[in-house]
Amino acid sequence: MGAPAIRILGIDPGLRNMGWGIIDVAGSRLTYVASGTIHSIASDDLCDRLRRLHEELARVIDTHAPHEVAVEETFVNRDPQSALKLGQARGIALVVPALAGLPVAEYAANLVKKTVTGTGHAEKAQIALMVKMLLPKFAGPGVRGLGADAADALAIAITHAHHYKPLAVRRA
Amino acid sequence: MGAPAIRILGIDPGLRNMGWGIIDVAGSRLTYVASGTIHSIASDDLCDRLRRLHEELARVIDTHAPHEVAVEETFVNRDPQSALKLGQARGIALVVPALAGLPVAEYAANLVKKTVTGTGHAEKAQIALMVKMLLPKFAGPGVRGLGADAADALAIAITHAHHYKPLAVRRA
Repeated sequence: MGAPAIRILGIDPGLRNMGWGIIDVAGSRLTYVASGTIHSIASDDLCDRLRRLHEELARVIDTHAPHEVAVEETFVNRDPQSALKLGQARGIALVVPALAGLPVAEYAANLVKKTVTGTGHAEKAQIALMVKMLLPKFAGPGVRGLGADAADALAIAITHAHHYKPLAVRRA
Repeated sequence: MGAPAIRILGIDPGLRNMGWGIIDVAGSRLTYVASGTIHSIASDDLCDRLRRLHEELARVIDTHAPHEVAVEETFVNRDPQSALKLGQARGIALVVPALAGLPVAEYAANLVKKTVTGTGHAEKAQIALMVKMLLPKFAGPGVRGLGADAADALAIAITHAHHYKPLAVRRA
């Protein structure tokens, strides 16, 4: 009998596309559970977009009951207007798990890349390829890049599995 | 018998201090209802801070049952890191009323200043003074500036009362 599985939800926060991915971790074994992308419509009111992200993310948590959550630390570029927009979506990605009483860890984007691909400067396509190799049941992003945010979210969950074992063990 | 009162919640979003203020509007008459500031502790985890803002703001809405909400449009300065931080708090200020099914309007900071003081470049102290004149029951910020965020939030609610009558009438 192996170690009990810890279920991890990874979130790639974004206002337009919020990727999410769930894996089970038992010892060194990772199993794909589910993934997806929550879209909000750019022409909708900001409040409605944030509410949609909030409600859909809460539904993901209700449905899959993860034990722990990992969110990517947002890369802040030189445009304060985009940083504000991303911040609003990121606030939702952090608060919804917190409201559900789940522990939330944050990981820098280049640590996620390094953990999954071995280099901190990997391209999105490389990350998706490695995620697909590590989690064969993940369908992977399609030819038009659909599912790329879900792949990123799974990469964040994998990063948590690699770097945050102590917390998982404490909670098991 | 006067026009039925519309209750407006104004919010001045901030991660450390989130000001809120509630007024009743009946025709051209404004009445102070309540105000306060929700604090989050800088040394706490970001998720816990956001959860606290979320829960306290939801409590304000539950307690006072406003009909409409007005939030200040955030001034984005040249620092993307602060913009991200403010964005996270602002996401909460927008999503909590939206989750409660309340309409949310946004107003630029200089419109709020102009509405309350007559100039778009008023100082914080000037705003507080005018808010106190318009809403005599508001105790106003103390000597150490406590309540300044609540005064700003009331100024936002007053701005909504002045500029958004049609929506209020439709909902009455």
